[in-house]
Amino acid sequence: MLPLAVTMGEPAGIGPDIALMAWRDRASQQLPPFYLIGDPELMEKRAARLGIGVPIVEVLPEEAIDSFAYGLPVVAAEGTEDNSAEDLPGAPTTDTAFMVIEAIRAGVDHIRSGRARAIVTNPIAKSVLAAAGFSHPGHTEFLGELARPFRVGPVRPIMMIWSRELAVVPVTIHMPLADVPARLTTNLIVETGAIVAHDLATRFGIAAPRLAICGLNPHAGEDGLMGSEDIDVIAPAVAELNRIGIAATGPHPADTLFHPEARKGYDVALGMYHDQVLVPVKTLAFDEGVNVTLGLPFIRTSPDHGTAFSLAGTGKARPSSLIHAIALAGRLAQPRA
Amino acid sequence: MLPLAVTMGEPAGIGPDIALMAWRDRASQQLPPFYLIGDPELMEKRAARLGIGVPIVEVLPEEAIDSFAYGLPVVAAEGTEDNSAEDLPGAPTTDTAFMVIEAIRAGVDHIRSGRARAIVTNPIAKSVLAAAGFSHPGHTEFLGELARPFRVGPVRPIMMIWSRELAVVPVTIHMPLADVPARLTTNLIVETGAIVAHDLATRFGIAAPRLAICGLNPHAGEDGLMGSEDIDVIAPAVAELNRIGIAATGPHPADTLFHPEARKGYDVALGMYHDQVLVPVKTLAFDEGVNVTLGLPFIRTSPDHGTAFSLAGTGKARPSSLIHAIALAGRLAQPRA
Repeated sequence: MLPLAVTMGEPAGIGPDIALMAWRDRASQQLPPFYLIGDPELMEKRAARLGIGVPIVEVLPEEAIDSFAYGLPVVAAEGTEDNSAEDLPGAPTTDTAFMVIEAIRAGVDHIRSGRARAIVTNPIAKSVLAAAGFSHPGHTEFLGELARPFRVGPVRPIMMIWSRELAVVPVTIHMPLADVPARLTTNLIVETGAIVAHDLATRFGIAAPRLAICGLNPHAGEDGLMGSEDIDVIAPAVAELNRIGIAATGPHPADTLFHPEARKGYDVALGMYHDQVLVPVKTLAFDEGVNVTLGLPFIRTSPDHGTAFSLAGTGKARPSSLIHAIALAGRLAQPRA
Repeated sequence: MLPLAVTMGEPAGIGPDIALMAWRDRASQQLPPFYLIGDPELMEKRAARLGIGVPIVEVLPEEAIDSFAYGLPVVAAEGTEDNSAEDLPGAPTTDTAFMVIEAIRAGVDHIRSGRARAIVTNPIAKSVLAAAGFSHPGHTEFLGELARPFRVGPVRPIMMIWSRELAVVPVTIHMPLADVPARLTTNLIVETGAIVAHDLATRFGIAAPRLAICGLNPHAGEDGLMGSEDIDVIAPAVAELNRIGIAATGPHPADTLFHPEARKGYDVALGMYHDQVLVPVKTLAFDEGVNVTLGLPFIRTSPDHGTAFSLAGTGKARPSSLIHAIALAGRLAQPRA
């Protein structure tokens, strides 16, 4: 069984802290073997600062499985040697940007070359990377680019937030709310739904996944009384998904779609914009939501929170979302029988 | 102590059912005395249909308190005599529209004339009333008009959804999502916040209410990266609320504002549009959310659901939201010490 590759993420954030804690809790949480890609020296310093008894073992990916029992295996990322390895929690610097980006690239490379099963990414600081010239809006888009050599045809990375209580996919994500109505098209909803249904079937083992599609307007427009998009854009997408054999329903009024009784009716809810579905999932499962990228030729998960600079190095960061991300990546990337 | 006036709402909906159930459960739920305004004959028939042993006592408002121990007191609404009093659950007709509207008018009149303490309204069917010529979009706007004679100056009714877990106010409500960004103004947010803070202090007994104001865009715009409204419209409103002595914070990213830890930080959350705050409150408190109208010269509450035609007359309707609405109206309309 191959290990999982976990990136260190932003060194000034809580990524190093929660990676150390996840290794510490590996037995009680029944985590599959994993290794970190980052700066071994910095990890040593962070462990010492936190007073957490986690040995750091510098390894190559192929040595990680054997080392996992003795300490947190760390594979040095490209650029580590140019890094000062100063441990400066809460004080990000562009000096580490190259290493942070190379760690992500290495994780994908390890999957492609058969040395890792899946990648789990710790939070990055977009503004720090952007200042260093990184041109992607975030992990998801960068991974979409790194995935291209894997297969012919378009790669369309899709963000799903998964928890035991609720799984959601926003059809549009990081854009001004005012832009959402014009960006929503029937085709975008159908494409998103088809990829979600495919990945839930092939990776999550849900043979005929049930998709609940939110309306855009209050009460899903109340028969056209409030906005036309629910009738003109979303209802045709639901019909088309049904036509191609996907069990989609909607458009549903979003406000009555997330109480316990309603959640029994679907496997994943597709929202038309960020807050419509990120609000309920973070309300219900704040500490254990996992970000899963669908539509890629490999498994990628990530904790559903940011760098939390103010908590880095303090011992107050909670590793639960990373632990859930590692556990889910292990489950999704099981070798086929 | 005066009784509460409860309107029957749409006769073909679940209003009659849940009113009967609320009276049946009056002791276990410790409900204050109330009477229904509607059609006594129809209520008899609905009680018989449900097989629920609730006697109907036709009364005048001033007789309601004495009758409450023996049966559900019902005050006949204007227009009842023209009503066929046929019990047709699930089959609304415009024949009853006049009576439905007059019941609401009577409830307000009973408060003004010192015969009722507060009004609790059962769900109406907007499309049925509109077909009969009712020109108001809903209860809230109609009550705003009925409230005008009470006092000099503008009345601005504001919808709050209140539950033990979470209280929310949408700053814009029943409009297409595409219209929201243009309708939001600093002034609208400040006015809404000021009325909410005033009513929480005077009615809910929260001396210095804490208001959490949501951003409009994902992550509250992330420093202007996604949309300008959070910086240009909402932040100035928070500053102005602070200037006039109101403890408002924000703009907050909505997705991280509703988990249990975050909810400790405020008494009410103001959302910029319907689903942003109706989603979390209905996710957390679907059966017990109460709609409270703030900004009126009297107390009005209402169950936070619709007519539910398919459940009317079946016995499957749940009275919990009406029961919470009656209990809250009783608590808010306590005579001052």
